[in-house]
Parts: sequence; structure tokens; C-alpha cells
Amino acid sequence: MILERLNTYFKMKEAVIVTIGKELLIGQVVDTNSSWLGQRLNELGIDVKRILSVSDDTEEIIHALEYGEKNADFVFLTGGLGPTEDDITKRTLANYFNTELEFDEETYSWIEYLFSKFGRKPLEVHRQQAFLPKSAEILKNKLGTAAGMLFRKNHVSYISFPGVPYEMKGLFNDHIAPRLVELQDQFIYHKTIRTVGQGESRLAEAIENIVNNLPSEIQIAYLPSLGSVRIRLTGKGVKGSIENLVDDFAEQIVKILEPYVYGFDTELLEESVGHLLKERDLKIATAESCTSGLIGHMIGLIPGASSYYLGSLTCYSNELKQNILGVNAETLNKFGAVSEEVVVEMLNGCLNNTGANIAVSISGIAGPTGGSIEKPVGTIWLACGNKTRVVTHKLTLAKNREINIKYSAVFALNMIRKFLLHE
Amino acid sequence: MILERLNTYFKMKEAVIVTIGKELLIGQVVDTNSSWLGQRLNELGIDVKRILSVSDDTEEIIHALEYGEKNADFVFLTGGLGPTEDDITKRTLANYFNTELEFDEETYSWIEYLFSKFGRKPLEVHRQQAFLPKSAEILKNKLGTAAGMLFRKNHVSYISFPGVPYEMKGLFNDHIAPRLVELQDQFIYHKTIRTVGQGESRLAEAIENIVNNLPSEIQIAYLPSLGSVRIRLTGKGVKGSIENLVDDFAEQIVKILEPYVYGFDTELLEESVGHLLKERDLKIATAESCTSGLIGHMIGLIPGASSYYLGSLTCYSNELKQNILGVNAETLNKFGAVSEEVVVEMLNGCLNNTGANIAVSISGIAGPTGGSIEKPVGTIWLACGNKTRVVTHKLTLAKNREINIKYSAVFALNMIRKFLLHE
Repeated sequence: MILERLNTYFKMKEAVIVTIGKELLIGQVVDTNSSWLGQRLNELGIDVKRILSVSDDTEEIIHALEYGEKNADFVFLTGGLGPTEDDITKRTLANYFNTELEFDEETYSWIEYLFSKFGRKPLEVHRQQAFLPKSAEILKNKLGTAAGMLFRKNHVSYISFPGVPYEMKGLFNDHIAPRLVELQDQFIYHKTIRTVGQGESRLAEAIENIVNNLPSEIQIAYLPSLGSVRIRLTGKGVKGSIENLVDDFAEQIVKILEPYVYGFDTELLEESVGHLLKERDLKIATAESCTSGLIGHMIGLIPGASSYYLGSLTCYSNELKQNILGVNAETLNKFGAVSEEVVVEMLNGCLNNTGANIAVSISGIAGPTGGSIEKPVGTIWLACGNKTRVVTHKLTLAKNREINIKYSAVFALNMIRKFLLHE
Repeated sequence: MILERLNTYFKMKEAVIVTIGKELLIGQVVDTNSSWLGQRLNELGIDVKRILSVSDDTEEIIHALEYGEKNADFVFLTGGLGPTEDDITKRTLANYFNTELEFDEETYSWIEYLFSKFGRKPLEVHRQQAFLPKSAEILKNKLGTAAGMLFRKNHVSYISFPGVPYEMKGLFNDHIAPRLVELQDQFIYHKTIRTVGQGESRLAEAIENIVNNLPSEIQIAYLPSLGSVRIRLTGKGVKGSIENLVDDFAEQIVKILEPYVYGFDTELLEESVGHLLKERDLKIATAESCTSGLIGHMIGLIPGASSYYLGSLTCYSNELKQNILGVNAETLNKFGAVSEEVVVEMLNGCLNNTGANIAVSISGIAGPTGGSIEKPVGTIWLACGNKTRVVTHKLTLAKNREINIKYSAVFALNMIRKFLLHE
């Protein structure tokens, strides 16, 4: 026991995440809560040991609680706190911790207030949401009717959140994150190098020597996604010194992979593009077709984008390409909508009609239908440039519509990035 | 044992899903594989008992295998089959099943072929991917270099897939789905009623009598998301008769909730809108600002949208609202970009410049900044209509940018739906 207590002093605090809801198991909902929680916990120096997704089922929830009790310092549960009959988490927790549900006046006043903002009164089922386990610490939910709950038992903390993502995030940030900051002793530090335009294996090959010389307290992982690869260095050690060690190795890697590196940590490619535009005081617009506005949407979604993003003209039909983007009917007839000639005219039309300094245009056959022998599904033309210089590129992708759209949007953003760096 | 075997005859086949990869635990990647697999397995009559997300860690993977062996008929593992050093799944499986890795010529020929399509040769690490467990059935991966593997032990099937989603899906559909179809005896049947425009509790209240009369073999679940609620009925029974029972109850529910029902099962709101447009032979375009093209993107993403979707004009700046959408400078000066007057002019400009029969326009302050006392963050104006009739609406949302954009896009799609049904 003494040895265990000493080990506890040096050991990283560990958490188990339990997401509750049959909808997760049958895939009607993608579990974004556990990935968000995992990210936040790691930022706060807490190692996530395991994530479990279970049904709204008493036995399954109890199993998860028992596993957490034996193996972790924190058990985070999301889901099952709603006002309908399949929400059983609260009763299960009350039974597990041998406590009763008690009416909490403050929680009910809050529920009444939330409804009054819409000119309504709570229903009986919402009143039931104000019955909370007596031994739990109530975590006030500013964004919804389901209060969060915190239980302590044998040095393990159990935190129950509603499953609605923005409510869960609000509760975590309000009530839990500040307490976790206080608990930090050993520290996990991540540095992620974000690359685009080269495959995982060749990147790994290029930095092989550095990787072979990593000290034992630093690990490396490769996280590929469509068209880009994130390289993550993770160091465990003393806060204030492990960061420098990790950053040194990151710098060495960046020196070798520089043409492909667009950002770090959570910086999205479109954020990186936004920075480059802002630095140069340039405005951008997009002229799209098969990507259905995705490129512009990605650029525009970044907070503050309105300082460099003018807008996006998605023109599916040939008529719209002519009317909105000024593409010539003859060009369309001669070369077809999916051609270098047409994307160049889309680009020029976009620059002229929006007043943008730089634009990107795209026209292609995303699939699954619409291909021909000369232009099979996956044929996608792009153009990027300004009034003095234009770069074009033809992609030859496969038949998956979703992949084609997403990959070519990423490719387009990288074209913009490279164009701006080249200027 | 005899009783267990009889129970096995009547019991639903069960699966455990194990997603492998530290990136899932620290939230750098959202786990979409388990939700996709869960959905497909349920369609095929297989109950998903639990989903585990674990690290690239031998002990954790073995735990998951042991849990699966005791509690399920199928164990699906995704992840950890890549060519870099943190990919340990294959070695762990070979050890667990007491078999050795052997060079598989056919797999390596396929890897060479994949590289040759890009004019390249495989690296040594890719050659390593051709070493596969001797006792495993190799599942050819047409979309990547990591072969899938199937092991059988004590009536349990263990299937290992790469973690890259489109590769995993390809392998499942090619090699596993056909076999599972053959195994179906008892059957899970879901009917999901998709609603928009009313909250979960009021919907539940409205159908309370029906819910109280559901037979024991049918369960109900409420799946809320931004602006919409799915109501899922799940029946377990004999294929060929349980479907009718579930559909009868679904029909009763639809009768009561009709104004809010837009579709069933996996039909997206934007698909439903697409059907309505196609039925009426109408063409639509969108004029957007704060949603950054999301409404048009959602409409356009549906395969076949080009038959009713003309395009989308996202005009962030006031200049673009004037130049592209013909909004009057005086209107902008007098009422501001976020006003009923401006969204009506955006709508008319969109109809005129695109030739669409119907359009929707939106202008608002998504946040987090940009608000004022008269127009706080979350103020969003929408207009929907044609040349003869226009409907406008003002939303008053909170401060979360992402929620505001997504919610108002859903709201806009529902405006279009209601407009079309009203015509």
C-alpha cells in the first residue's frame, strides 16, 4: 500500500471516459464527446486510459463504473440524463453510490428560468430533472436542463455530464477544468506538426534519423487524413522542461519537412491560409462547382475570416458559370465544364466580379456518376492565382464522391498556401 | 452447456468493436469508424454490445480480445495496421493467436501495383505490411496497403481492419457483409422518424399514449441534435413480421407529429428538400453570408443534386452583397446587413441572377464577435421564397459560432421544406 501511494505520487493521473447511449452503438450518432474530452484531459495532463461506449443499460453502466473505480482516478460519463424514458444514468448512479434522489430547488428554479426565456413553462418531465442524488455535488448546467453531477468514492472522482455536446463542454469548462489545473504534477506535452502534400511513409522515411534518436520520454505518432498527415510528438515529464525538449525535436523535424509543413497543433490548413492572407493584406474569393462551396466554407468558418474572405460563388450549372462567373459559352462547348480552360475563366470571372486579390476555382466530376471515357469520375481541374499569375492542376481521383470533394478542397487550400508563399 | 447452446440458438449475435489508436484517446481524431460499423452491423441483425477505444498498447488490445472472446460472437478491431512504428496490432494478434508472420506474395504484388499507379515503388516499411499472420484469412484491401485479417477461435470471429475509414468500409463491405447476411436468424428492425422544428420533450408528450402502449419487443429512443429530433423505434423478432409491427406504431406516431416529420431512417433534411424540389421540377439557389455557404453545401452534397440545385452565392462583404446579389447601398446603410430588408433584397437578387425558381437567403451575426446592443451575437435573418411569395424569419440564438451556423442552416432547410409544402 505504501509503495502504491508512492507510485501514485509519481504516476500520471488517469481517466476513463464512458459514453452512454444506444445511438452510439448503432451508429446513428458519431461520438464526438469522447474525442473532445480526451483532448481537453490531455491538455490538462491527464492520461486517458480507455474509452467505453455502452448502451442505456444498468449493467453496462455499472461495469464501466467498476472498471473506472479499479483503474482510474477519474471516470467521466456522458449521456443518459435527458427527460425521456431511456435516460437511466441518474438512477443508476444514485443506486451505485447508495444515495437517494432529492428535489433541488436551485436546479428547478434554473430550469424554470430557461423555459421562461422562450415564454414557456417546464413540463413534469423537466421537473423530474431537478431530482438529483443527495450525495452528489451538483454542477450547474447553464446551457440546458440536465445538471451535471460529481461523486467522490475511494479517491476516485466520477463526473456525470449530459450527452449534448455543447452542454457537456460547458459543464467541463466551468466546473472541472479549473480543478484539474490545480492537480497537475507530471505533465504531458504534445507538439503536433501538420503537413500536407506528402504521404505518411515518405515523411517517416525522411525523418528516420531523428526518430531513431528520440529519448525514451518522447514518443511519435503519425495521424494521416485525407491529403494531409499530422506528426505528433508526445513528451512526459516535468512541466517547464519537457516542453523545450519536445520543441527541439520538433524543430529538427520541421527543418527537414519544411515544404510540407503548414502549421502546428490544432491550426487548421484554412487557418494557416487565413494567416498568410492577413499578413499580406489580401482578399480571397472562391469559384466552385463540384466541391459545392466547401472550400469557401472552410475558409469562412474561421473566426475573423471576414477580414480576408469575400465570399464564394458555387455555380453548378453551365448557365450559372456563364451568368455569375462570365465563363464563355464557346469555351464550355469546346472544352467542357471540366477543363483547364474553363477553370481559368472561372478564376478570372471570380477575380473580376468579386474584386478579390486572389482566388481559387474548381470544376470536376466528384461522382459517383457523370464520368466518361475522356473524363472519368474523379477528374478534377483547379486553378489558383491573381491577375498576373495562374497555376492550374488536374487531379485524377477515384470514385468516392465524399473523398473526392474533401480531398480536392484540401488540395485547393494547399494550392492557395503554396501560391501565397511563392509570391 | 446445453442450455447455453440453446440460448445461443435464440440469442441475437453480438459484436464488440475495438478502435485502436492513441489519437482517439487524446481526441485528435473523432472516432467515426465505430459509429459506421455499429450502423452496418445493426442493419445486418447484429447487436453491438460495447465499443472500446484503446491505445496502441499490447495489454489494452489483449484485454479487448479477451473481453470479446468471453462476451461476443464477433470482435471487430480497427487501427494499428499502418507502416509506422506505433502500429502494433498485427504483431499483437499474431502472438495472441499463437501464429507467426509469413510473407504473402499476393499481398505484396498488390502493394507494388498500388505504388506503380503513382509511378513509384514501395518502401521497405510497405514490404513489411506484406508479412501477415499465418493462421489468419487475408482480406484483400483494394484501397490501401494494409490487408485485413480474419481469425476464428472457439466460435468467435476476430476481424482486424486498418483504421483509415474508407479502407475499413471497403473491407467490411467486400468481405464481411456478405457473410453476415447468411448468418441472420433473429432480426433487429429500426424505424427512425426524423423531425425538425420542435423540442424532444414536447414531441414525447404529444405521443405519450402511443409510447405507453408499445409491446415489450419494441423500444423507443429520442435522438436530439441541433434543431431536429430523431425518434427511433427498435423491434426485435422474426424477420418478415417484426417490421410490420414496428411500422404500424411508426405510422401512429407520424399521424400525430405530421407537421414536424420530414423523413425516415437515414434521409437527411436536405435530401427531403431535394425530393420536394424534384417532384415539383423546381430549381433552387442560396444567397448566404454568415453560414458561409453551408446551406448550399448541404443541398449540393446529395448525389443527383445537380438536377435541382443551381448554386450558392456566399457574400460576406457588403460590396459583394451589392455586386453579386444586387442589394442596394441605401438599404445596407439604412437597415444594416443583418436586417429583414437586406435578406429580402438578397433573395430577390439571387432569384434574378441565377434564374432559380426558389431561393433562401440568410444574413446574421454568428459570433463570437460582431454584435451590438440592437443586434447581439446570434441575431440571424432569413428569407425564403419565389417571385410571388416571400417568408422571412428572425432567429435569436446564443453566442456559439458553430452552433449558430449549423442551427440556422438546418432552420433554413426547414423553411424551404415548409415553403414547398405550402405551395
